[in-house]
This record gives sequence, structure tokens and C-alpha cells, in this order.
Amino acid sequence: MNWSAGGACSTLDRMSSFVHQRHKSPLDQPGARELVLACPPMRSNVNLSRIVRTAGCCGVQRMIVGGKPKIDRKVARDAIDQVQIDFHRTLPPVLRKLKADGYELVGLEQTTGSQCLCDFRFKLRTVMVIGHERLGITEDVLKLLDHVVEIPVYGVPHSHNAATAAAMAMYEYCRQHGTGV
Amino acid sequence: MNWSAGGACSTLDRMSSFVHQRHKSPLDQPGARELVLACPPMRSNVNLSRIVRTAGCCGVQRMIVGGKPKIDRKVARDAIDQVQIDFHRTLPPVLRKLKADGYELVGLEQTTGSQCLCDFRFKLRTVMVIGHERLGITEDVLKLLDHVVEIPVYGVPHSHNAATAAAMAMYEYCRQHGTGV
Repeated sequence: MNWSAGGACSTLDRMSSFVHQRHKSPLDQPGARELVLACPPMRSNVNLSRIVRTAGCCGVQRMIVGGKPKIDRKVARDAIDQVQIDFHRTLPPVLRKLKADGYELVGLEQTTGSQCLCDFRFKLRTVMVIGHERLGITEDVLKLLDHVVEIPVYGVPHSHNAATAAAMAMYEYCRQHGTGV
Repeated sequence: MNWSAGGACSTLDRMSSFVHQRHKSPLDQPGARELVLACPPMRSNVNLSRIVRTAGCCGVQRMIVGGKPKIDRKVARDAIDQVQIDFHRTLPPVLRKLKADGYELVGLEQTTGSQCLCDFRFKLRTVMVIGHERLGITEDVLKLLDHVVEIPVYGVPHSHNAATAAAMAMYEYCRQHGTGV
């Protein structure tokens, strides 16, 4: 390759200045991520498994899951080994316990009084509560929440897929808290 | 219901202050969203269809798609009717044309020189270029890009699903540009 002054520019024109570095090592997180995900019994195990994968990538270490659904390893990948998943018959008792432990309970839903995800400031110790795909967050859980955040929607369909919405909310939490220190 | 001073508090304690308002009307967007999504031939039509749904929710009106894949209406929902999807045998010619029309080409990938999605400032006229699930963005497309952004990863697996990553990037674009004015 000719790096002489005359040839450099035209050579560079044909080369990409971006070279793949796929599957980089994750960022160092000095402590456990203080974000807990809570999911009710979901309609789709694929959605739940997608949430597990995203949680793993976001460094989440604990999920609270309603029912006893099967997590699909093909979808969740090795997040299934990183994220501790606690199964509960119903969510309210464990949510009350987490609240008593100093967690803020934040639901992802469209409700009266819901705040835009973009403007909401997450506390470090947060339980992010996801809703069922069709029914959303049930009334017994809604009344325990400290805040509800919603994702602005600009077109059709009028709501995001539940796992997509959870991914956006986890991204926003990580954007605010980085490695969590 | 008793709203007298004595009863109000205990009544409120048992009620949720958040009441469902699911599937709200989308936010008014005065003009067309100036974000274009570009997807290569993907491995999974479900991933592509999920991207179409998210694009619809984000008010995106145009996608450039490599190959002639089938979009699954059950996944994409009525976004399939809102988003104009242009199919192309290969992406570079249409990307060059969009660049000439003033669009900035931003790839979503882990590369040398890639910037953190959280810090990157999207121009209004942006083509967001997604990569293939396994292979990422191909070399012929990489060398056309103005910027590459990557999503920080804090755990395993070491990369997000392609449709999840696209959703996070679309969320970040919308967070910065709101209704696009």
C-alpha cells in the first residue's frame, strides 16, 4: 500500500475508517447494578426471554418474574446465567419488600400522571416494572408504584412491543447511571 | 365513595393514583420525521418486522431494506401501512444518493472510532444504518458512513439483539429531536 502523499488520499477514499470490533468486552461495572426488573406473567415467553437478554447486556443482576415461565436460552443467550431470576406467584409481596429495602418502584405504562421516560430521573435503586403485553400493569401492582413512565409514541401502532419498551427504558436508566457509581 | 375529610385518606390508600390510558393517540408531528432506517438483508424477518413496528411508533416514514424480505404483519402491526419500505438489491447506491441529499449516514456497530450512542448528537436528517445479526455492517456500507455509534454493554451477552439495538438508537434519536421540529 502506498502511503506517499500523492497516493494516501485516494487510497483512504477506498478504505473504511471504521473497522469491526464486534462483541467487545463489556464495560467494567465496579458494583452490582442496582436496577431490578419486575415482569408479571407475560403472554409470550419470547418477549420475556428478550427482556432477559437485554437485562444481561445492561448489567442487571436480578429479575422478579411472575409465574414459572420457561426462559428460552436461544433468545436470552448467556444472560440466563448472569441474571438471577426469582419466580413469584404474585408480584405485590416482593415489590412491597423491595420498597421497604429502599427501592423506588417505577412502572412502564401509559396512565394518568405518567411522566415521559425522556424527562424522568431514575434513582439508582429502582425496580422497573413491566406490564403484560395486552393488559399492562395490573391494578394491584399499579397502586404500589411510586412513579409511572411512558415512552412517547409518534405514529402507529400506538404502543411499543413490551420487550422493546423495556429495552428503551433500560437504555435510559443506563444512559443516566452508566456503570452505576 | 366517601370523599369527606375523614374518609378520603384511607380511601386513597386503597386506590391507585395511576389509571390506565393505554394506546393513547400519538404525539402530533408537524412534519415528516427526517430519520430514515436502512437495513441490510437480515437473517431474521422477525427482527426486521420488529424494527418496522418500532419505526412506526417512532414516526419514521421511510425505510431502505436490502433484498426482498417478507414483513410479518403480525409483528409489524399497522406500522407496515405507515412506513414506506423501499427494497433495494444492495444498499450502497441508495445510501450514496441519500448522502448527496444531505443525510448523515450513521451506522450502529462496534468499530474502531465508534462513538457512544449516549453522547452522540444526531442530525435531524439522518440515515440510521443497522447491521446484519451475525455479520454486522458490511465493508461496502461501512466505508460510506459518516459516523458509527455503539451501545454500551455492561454484561453478557456482549451484544444486543439487532432489533433491540435499533430500538434503543431510535429512542435516542427521538429523545433528542422529539416531534422533529
